[in-house]
Amino acid sequence: MTTSIKASTKLGFLGAGQLARMSALQAFRFGIQVAVYSDRPENEPVQFMTPYSYNGSFDDVDKMVEFAKSCDVITLENEFINSSVLRKVQKESGTPIYPSPDSFALIENKLIEKQTFENAGIPVTPYKLVKDSVDFTDFGKKYGWPFLLKSSKGGYDGYGNKTVHNLTEAAKAFEALGGHEGHDIIAEAFVDFTHELAVQVARNETGSVVYSCCETVQENHICLAVLAPAPVDEAIQKKAQELAVQATEAINGKGIFAFEFFLTKNGEVLLNESAPRPHNSGHYSIEGCIGSQFENHVRAVLGLPLASTKMTEPAAVMINLLGTHSRPAEADHVTDALTTKDGHLHVYGKVQSKIGRKMAHFTLLGDDLESTHQKAKLLTKDIEI
Amino acid sequence: MTTSIKASTKLGFLGAGQLARMSALQAFRFGIQVAVYSDRPENEPVQFMTPYSYNGSFDDVDKMVEFAKSCDVITLENEFINSSVLRKVQKESGTPIYPSPDSFALIENKLIEKQTFENAGIPVTPYKLVKDSVDFTDFGKKYGWPFLLKSSKGGYDGYGNKTVHNLTEAAKAFEALGGHEGHDIIAEAFVDFTHELAVQVARNETGSVVYSCCETVQENHICLAVLAPAPVDEAIQKKAQELAVQATEAINGKGIFAFEFFLTKNGEVLLNESAPRPHNSGHYSIEGCIGSQFENHVRAVLGLPLASTKMTEPAAVMINLLGTHSRPAEADHVTDALTTKDGHLHVYGKVQSKIGRKMAHFTLLGDDLESTHQKAKLLTKDIEI
Repeated sequence: MTTSIKASTKLGFLGAGQLARMSALQAFRFGIQVAVYSDRPENEPVQFMTPYSYNGSFDDVDKMVEFAKSCDVITLENEFINSSVLRKVQKESGTPIYPSPDSFALIENKLIEKQTFENAGIPVTPYKLVKDSVDFTDFGKKYGWPFLLKSSKGGYDGYGNKTVHNLTEAAKAFEALGGHEGHDIIAEAFVDFTHELAVQVARNETGSVVYSCCETVQENHICLAVLAPAPVDEAIQKKAQELAVQATEAINGKGIFAFEFFLTKNGEVLLNESAPRPHNSGHYSIEGCIGSQFENHVRAVLGLPLASTKMTEPAAVMINLLGTHSRPAEADHVTDALTTKDGHLHVYGKVQSKIGRKMAHFTLLGDDLESTHQKAKLLTKDIEI
Repeated sequence: MTTSIKASTKLGFLGAGQLARMSALQAFRFGIQVAVYSDRPENEPVQFMTPYSYNGSFDDVDKMVEFAKSCDVITLENEFINSSVLRKVQKESGTPIYPSPDSFALIENKLIEKQTFENAGIPVTPYKLVKDSVDFTDFGKKYGWPFLLKSSKGGYDGYGNKTVHNLTEAAKAFEALGGHEGHDIIAEAFVDFTHELAVQVARNETGSVVYSCCETVQENHICLAVLAPAPVDEAIQKKAQELAVQATEAINGKGIFAFEFFLTKNGEVLLNESAPRPHNSGHYSIEGCIGSQFENHVRAVLGLPLASTKMTEPAAVMINLLGTHSRPAEADHVTDALTTKDGHLHVYGKVQSKIGRKMAHFTLLGDDLESTHQKAKLLTKDIEI
């Protein structure tokens, strides 16, 4: 176990968006230095937070090796880099990457991900690898139309997913998702759920810690709000937490991980998606827990002992503030959000607002979940960003 | 009142040490960009946190003007820059500086500072401008030996102060402090105090907020620990808070300010020192209050409404972790500090440890001040840094 923090330690982020940004803030708290590698042409938030900034493609092994050599540890804020690329970068640079390329390899492909978790005894949403209209028909018969087609690589916030109601739509979606180019496409049944739940787990060689089970309130696959703890039975919360820890162990995870579950009408908890990184569902933990998901991300990848995940107040609600305009970024009408006693506004420092883009969030703590949720919505309803 | 936060806003810090660093972390939380001007040859903490870094002297108006022009607002983390220099930089760059040069002018000289606060009806420690041995003798007769001689400019953590027991020591100290070169030297009586107290106030055009009155536990003018709220009568706490707000108004302060008081054996509260910046006595507020002194520093200078200063737990104790070695910075034996549930370790990212240098701090929250203080000392006693 690492019991020292060296000021000269440099933590490198592959990706420079809001998740890396909030992790970097925690690295700074420990006096750790931060370097960043971005694949975007425009300046991203973390690039305003370090003198050590690289630009390049996530396929450019040489450039990433050069970057990794300048760092002591590398971590990621997304799952878009191929595990074989990560493995090469780790090997050629000699700099460890956490979560490890081996962990990534077990979840980067949705098919392998499902199999990994099923093999670990974790119930997942019904799915099947599909190739043609016979497969579509069979799946529709078994689980009913409509169902989802998902590319096995690169889904994020609903991208890479298509809802299909019939054979024609299925064939079209299969092609749009790259099935005709040999990409693995899986069919996934629509689950009749009452709640979408999420749990974060941090784990490294010192042990693991699990966050409260929260509810993600979604509309069109976009998360509008997160309620912690989730307004479901404690036994359900505990079940989701147990499955999340099991899932983290199944991929031998070192870092912070998020798991999204469906709570079905029958009371089953089914694992839906996993993310080997800080997750939108855990933003409430910055003020809502003693140690946030970002703090434990940094601690986990540095090999430091992990922080308590205990909630600081009985209820925490996080509201995502999505771009309402396409314009140079500016958060307007934020007075209510800034002046409410237990409210905490976070603005991500993206230069450009786009409609629907995640630009900021607001967390409100309170004693009662429902009233805190209503109040948080009210306090943020006039914000334009 | 500003109700918008623009992502492109750049906040410039004159000074790049731990106080600017913790303020910068709050600026980043709002998506604000940070630039820094340092007068130190070695890299300072904030210089690892921004691509916008300048080096130069605090006397070099042209260089500071160039820096200020690249920023939207300038703030400071120390009181070492002459107000006339700040006024020139503000005028020539067109970039506002907060706290304003006018506020600085009222407190940069200890003599003027004392007069400013006395004129506002705030009781200060007994003092007198002294020129020669007749003055020393008179002061000693009136208030007793030993007393303090202070240079009217540039005191910090006990530097610029000398305790004198007799005429010979007084003459020697007078010269060492620059009295023979025309620097104003004031004599200050030793106050027979039971507690050293401190209060932070944030103020801008939207209003003002005041933090709890805390106790600073000092040894040889070095602050070892801060206890919040101070273990003194509530009436005394309230008195100190009122005086701190009055003092902030007396200098028309915009920003965050800290005031240090003596609580005398007779129960008087005497203003001892003021600082127009975040202050070591307010570090506990990062976790101990809903809005920290650093958050309110940033809010105040940007013209944003101020955050609640309410404490999050009944007791907060901050332990300063001073350099125990002269070596490349490394915090050893930090496991206890990292794993205690309500403990929060902050490492400043200074590259080099020096014995006695402020390198890090540890805050512990709890229900009871005395036991929290004992526990915090125990958890940090083995840390080497």
